[in-house]
Amino acid sequence: MKILFVLMLASLSLQAQRAREMGIKIGVLTPGKQNAITDVKGVKVGHTTLHEGDRIHTGVTAILPHEDNIFQNKVPAGIYIGNGFGKLTGISQVKELGNLETPIILTNTMSVPTAADALIDYTLSQKGNERVKSVNFLVGETNDGYLNDISARVITKQHVLDAIKNAKSGPVEEGNVGAGSGTVCFGWKGGIGTSSRVLPEKSGGYTVGVLVQSNYGGVLEINGVPVGKNLGKHFLHDQLNDPADGSCMMIVATDAPLSSRNLERLAKRAMLGLAKTGGIASNGSGDYVIAFSTAEEVRIKPGSKYYTSTELHNDDTSPLFLATIEATEEALLNSLFMAQTLKGVSGTVEALPIDEVRKMISKK
Amino acid sequence: MKILFVLMLASLSLQAQRAREMGIKIGVLTPGKQNAITDVKGVKVGHTTLHEGDRIHTGVTAILPHEDNIFQNKVPAGIYIGNGFGKLTGISQVKELGNLETPIILTNTMSVPTAADALIDYTLSQKGNERVKSVNFLVGETNDGYLNDISARVITKQHVLDAIKNAKSGPVEEGNVGAGSGTVCFGWKGGIGTSSRVLPEKSGGYTVGVLVQSNYGGVLEINGVPVGKNLGKHFLHDQLNDPADGSCMMIVATDAPLSSRNLERLAKRAMLGLAKTGGIASNGSGDYVIAFSTAEEVRIKPGSKYYTSTELHNDDTSPLFLATIEATEEALLNSLFMAQTLKGVSGTVEALPIDEVRKMISKK
Amino acid sequence: MKILFVLMLASLSLQAQRAREMGIKIGVLTPGKQNAITDVKGVKVGHTTLHEGDRIHTGVTAILPHEDNIFQNKVPAGIYIGNGFGKLTGISQVKELGNLETPIILTNTMSVPTAADALIDYTLSQKGNERVKSVNFLVGETNDGYLNDISARVITKQHVLDAIKNAKSGPVEEGNVGAGSGTVCFGWKGGIGTSSRVLPEKSGGYTVGVLVQSNYGGVLEINGVPVGKNLGKHFLHDQLNDPADGSCMMIVATDAPLSSRNLERLAKRAMLGLAKTGGIASNGSGDYVIAFSTAEEVRIKPGSKYYTSTELHNDDTSPLFLATIEATEEALLNSLFMAQTLKGVSGTVEALPIDEVRKMISKK
Amino acid sequence: MKILFVLMLASLSLQAQRAREMGIKIGVLTPGKQNAITDVKGVKVGHTTLHEGDRIHTGVTAILPHEDNIFQNKVPAGIYIGNGFGKLTGISQVKELGNLETPIILTNTMSVPTAADALIDYTLSQKGNERVKSVNFLVGETNDGYLNDISARVITKQHVLDAIKNAKSGPVEEGNVGAGSGTVCFGWKGGIGTSSRVLPEKSGGYTVGVLVQSNYGGVLEINGVPVGKNLGKHFLHDQLNDPADGSCMMIVATDAPLSSRNLERLAKRAMLGLAKTGGIASNGSGDYVIAFSTAEEVRIKPGSKYYTSTELHNDDTSPLFLATIEATEEALLNSLFMAQTLKGVSGTVEALPIDEVRKMISKK
Repeated sequence: MKILFVLMLASLSLQAQRAREMGIKIGVLTPGKQNAITDVKGVKVGHTTLHEGDRIHTGVTAILPHEDNIFQNKVPAGIYIGNGFGKLTGISQVKELGNLETPIILTNTMSVPTAADALIDYTLSQKGNERVKSVNFLVGETNDGYLNDISARVITKQHVLDAIKNAKSGPVEEGNVGAGSGTVCFGWKGGIGTSSRVLPEKSGGYTVGVLVQSNYGGVLEINGVPVGKNLGKHFLHDQLNDPADGSCMMIVATDAPLSSRNLERLAKRAMLGLAKTGGIASNGSGDYVIAFSTAEEVRIKPGSKYYTSTELHNDDTSPLFLATIEATEEALLNSLFMAQTLKGVSGTVEALPIDEVRKMISKK
Repeated sequence: MKILFVLMLASLSLQAQRAREMGIKIGVLTPGKQNAITDVKGVKVGHTTLHEGDRIHTGVTAILPHEDNIFQNKVPAGIYIGNGFGKLTGISQVKELGNLETPIILTNTMSVPTAADALIDYTLSQKGNERVKSVNFLVGETNDGYLNDISARVITKQHVLDAIKNAKSGPVEEGNVGAGSGTVCFGWKGGIGTSSRVLPEKSGGYTVGVLVQSNYGGVLEINGVPVGKNLGKHFLHDQLNDPADGSCMMIVATDAPLSSRNLERLAKRAMLGLAKTGGIASNGSGDYVIAFSTAEEVRIKPGSKYYTSTELHNDDTSPLFLATIEATEEALLNSLFMAQTLKGVSGTVEALPIDEVRKMISKK
Repeated sequence: MKILFVLMLASLSLQAQRAREMGIKIGVLTPGKQNAITDVKGVKVGHTTLHEGDRIHTGVTAILPHEDNIFQNKVPAGIYIGNGFGKLTGISQVKELGNLETPIILTNTMSVPTAADALIDYTLSQKGNERVKSVNFLVGETNDGYLNDISARVITKQHVLDAIKNAKSGPVEEGNVGAGSGTVCFGWKGGIGTSSRVLPEKSGGYTVGVLVQSNYGGVLEINGVPVGKNLGKHFLHDQLNDPADGSCMMIVATDAPLSSRNLERLAKRAMLGLAKTGGIASNGSGDYVIAFSTAEEVRIKPGSKYYTSTELHNDDTSPLFLATIEATEEALLNSLFMAQTLKGVSGTVEALPIDEVRKMISKK
Repeated sequence: MKILFVLMLASLSLQAQRAREMGIKIGVLTPGKQNAITDVKGVKVGHTTLHEGDRIHTGVTAILPHEDNIFQNKVPAGIYIGNGFGKLTGISQVKELGNLETPIILTNTMSVPTAADALIDYTLSQKGNERVKSVNFLVGETNDGYLNDISARVITKQHVLDAIKNAKSGPVEEGNVGAGSGTVCFGWKGGIGTSSRVLPEKSGGYTVGVLVQSNYGGVLEINGVPVGKNLGKHFLHDQLNDPADGSCMMIVATDAPLSSRNLERLAKRAMLGLAKTGGIASNGSGDYVIAFSTAEEVRIKPGSKYYTSTELHNDDTSPLFLATIEATEEALLNSLFMAQTLKGVSGTVEALPIDEVRKMISKK
């Protein structure tokens, strides 16, 4: 029955529109073909989605940087912490060694340990990893405890392994799916969103793709239109009912050849994209960004004592910064536009009121 | 003659309008009486402004947290680095000890050493400091080298001491004054800007004030309106002429009783305000935020082995985060709106085209 | 049978001697009554120890800062990362909020997820926590994969809950127990060690207690005597057989009233103690220090919007720094002196050769 | 007269002995030919030394990574802050961009601004730098205010330029010279010290050189012998007279091809060397380490959009960590052994009592 429900939801999702389909063009750069993180060649995304009655709305989203054995072919990575009230695991090793060695898993707050354990299973099960005794599991989360009975901890290791197994390139499902199944954003239904940017050739022609799990608050703006203020639904409007807390996980992929140092800088810019949606990184928010590069020129090859990389100069990173900001802003908006009204364990959270939003935007 | 010129410019400045006078209301919170950093009781600001022909356009801005001997009555402080391509001194000691002990000085990049030396002079000259042998001079900068002959290093220690001496409460001069005399922002004339927010009583009634020295780039947005895009003047539009580099110094003052840890978090939010103006924290940008609290309840009293402070819980910081974001965004816009077209050593930089901007904004 | 074995081992442990019993006096300060982390009033330590044949040598060690509900009565805390090749969870939230809210759990690398999950169980099971939806599980580890079949992941949630339940004040078992059951240090058998220092009254009379899980390498020194060099057993002596990798978890408790900022500074000093044993924080080492204060004066009381704390001035922290360095050095030596030769899954690791060491030391 | 005095002092210095000449062999690795930072090919050191009567004992030490225009040929660099109560400038830009672009200057606390200004002069004066408008001056300091009339700020820009000009390879003067002229260490006369290590060929054969400016305290140990304890002269022994405060600047050079990330890790290890001398990084200490690589394989070449580097794997950095620890410990000891008794503005500071120390060491 679960499967059926998921399929039904997926078909519903097709009726929602992404920000760009509604005529909302964020920024000055051009998206990639799918306008998704998967526009970065080799990147795959997989979801496990759990919707069971009114009580369970949660899931898992897996992001894979490439098709090979990740533990054997680590990719340079950087992490930035916008606000650290969250449970992302694996931070210190990524920072120390400058790379990541597992798929990135997103899930709910209370299921981080299960997902971490599953990443160990996954890594040990890969050919050539039989003797691995240390795995830097990278698991992020947001808290879906308003709609989902989070204390039930229904996520199993198999759900995580399924998300990894199901990962694919091409279009990415958005909205109430995977780790975004039960999330809430600016008081509306949030979820998974994605977007991308391709730099002009003179700036290197690189692609930056972003995927988000949105569950945060503040004063919603959509491409500069003060939607939250107009609708009277925002942080501090009615203090009892409009907390800004929640969290946001942001994953940034690029094919630009960047060192871990510059990837951490890239990660930092995703928070600027979040700011443009009206996010405030409230005290209770766990806002984390993981950025990685898929470029072969900076891939950390095992075996030899040295490795050679050809990387971009610092001076040429700014266009990638802008691409990250734009793609993050749009990914966050997509997570809102693609989410659906959902009844959960503590009540119903409405989807963004599309018609009203459309009117506000058209006046701009 | 210099003095006369400064006065003339100041009178010109009175004709420009601040963002709010143009009907631009940033955010959902209310500004303080002056809509300036000086709305935080006790905070004073002083400028020394140098405009000499077409060659020299630079200066000094001093921010004092209170009227007493600062070295003897240190205030809790935190620093956040948005992008570290800059020369702000004093960072590590503020972070280690959680306080600041001198006025904050802003000036041009090449005059940081002179200003630092002047802060030593100033500190030693204060009564009771005669035996001080270590001063954590806090000097920030942006690079005004397009309009100002920065290599001439015309700033003297006296200019710095004058800025401190001239510091006063009440209205703050903005635009082409002090450390903002020669700065450029989004390709338009930038400068000094300030703004403030007062929290509702139920959120504590605290004031947050921000002062900025704007000299950065990206894709300008004014209260959500894509002015840079509309005017075809933004980063990557014409790569040769529209670099995003530059820097931005942001000073955040509050009377909320915050520890240095929470002040660092407050500082971090100023970058979210910068993001909303379209700033991208480009590679070449030195974007720094210094936040301090003037609250007596957290003042670090000398003498005894212990000190008692009454501070806000983490849980009650989010309204201050929002206030910081809004005040920073508005301070940055004020720095643009209050700046005047200026001819300098490498050419002329226009002020923001107010009439065109007015039209774009009115359509919103 | 497991229980019997554990008891037998415990009785063996009684025959080993702690560093101080062998006449080794580290530093210039005086230990507390137990010369253990439990000298800090209220702190409790519990172990679950698993020794099964030659294949399983692992366990869990729990450190509790006080007897109350920790989630409801968080304590100020700071974390320092000596080298980040490790899996400690919970880092970012401790840093952001300045406190910890669960017992600290130490275990093996591959069992971190299980221990994290158990900490959620534990927290939810505490009276008054029934509605908790977010738990910042704090789980550290070192890799016991040479002696222990770490891939078997034999640690269960019950083992973790047992360690918490068994936690007690008074003497602390050291050596091959708890999370130190299967660890290796400088090529000898490592394990759990602890020590403490009490400051002179004129320096405040505070106690600092340290507990370590030792599993690292370098060139062993015992109170300045180059034991590793003398025995020809050290890093780089015979590159194939003497790697320095491994990890070290260090927990620092104090009753001094310190803010989280100063606790992070305290944590940082533990690495200086590790240095004095000849540790080098090698590339493959996960060296982490968690420091917390049990002082009522800085306890973060829930409920009100503000909290008042009376804390030590920065100027009075140095004696605590020295105490931390000394207690860490001695705790690490105790972990070696109290460990026993052990046959494990990949071979036998000898205990420190006490008689030879005794001779070297006596010549000093 | 100044010159004469300096020469006289230099000749006195020749009579003092370095640690190794006294039979003290730190660690297990072998020093380079000079046992100095200049064993790293291309590195040069220059001093300006000021001894004037009893009142002035200060100076400048310059460290140059190579012979070329440093601004045009930046080298990868990392900075680690052991304790941040100090005034080192340039930190944030080194961290952000991963490189340094000026000579490293060491001087006294109050002369940092002057030295920074001199570095701007120096940089602008280099051929090809005429249009430079931004210089990341890197100036460290310790406080020589006990022996030197630090408030007089006698250091001039010319003194700094002279130190740079005088920089040479080969043997490095130690003790009461340059920036170490008036420093105090563990209550004895400190100063400049240097040492180096060469790795075995199987570990890459790289050289690590360290230069220190010692001005800190704690409980002195010399190669593990508790000299401070034995002599009853250490922190907390007599609280009024034995503060541990002061500072220590440490410069680490290597020809190993390391990224800025791994150089920061290298820098971190220098603090472990300081720990082994009994340093405690007291509250009032400004303990900073700057590490850089001279390897051509990682040199940041200007001009092109990309640069290719061949760097060591993380896995092969541990031998360099050990080399850094050993060379730092020995450099610090050399700074003590080579310093001379000095009468200054507030009294006389004795040199380490060599004969007594010799006896203690020989018993080992």
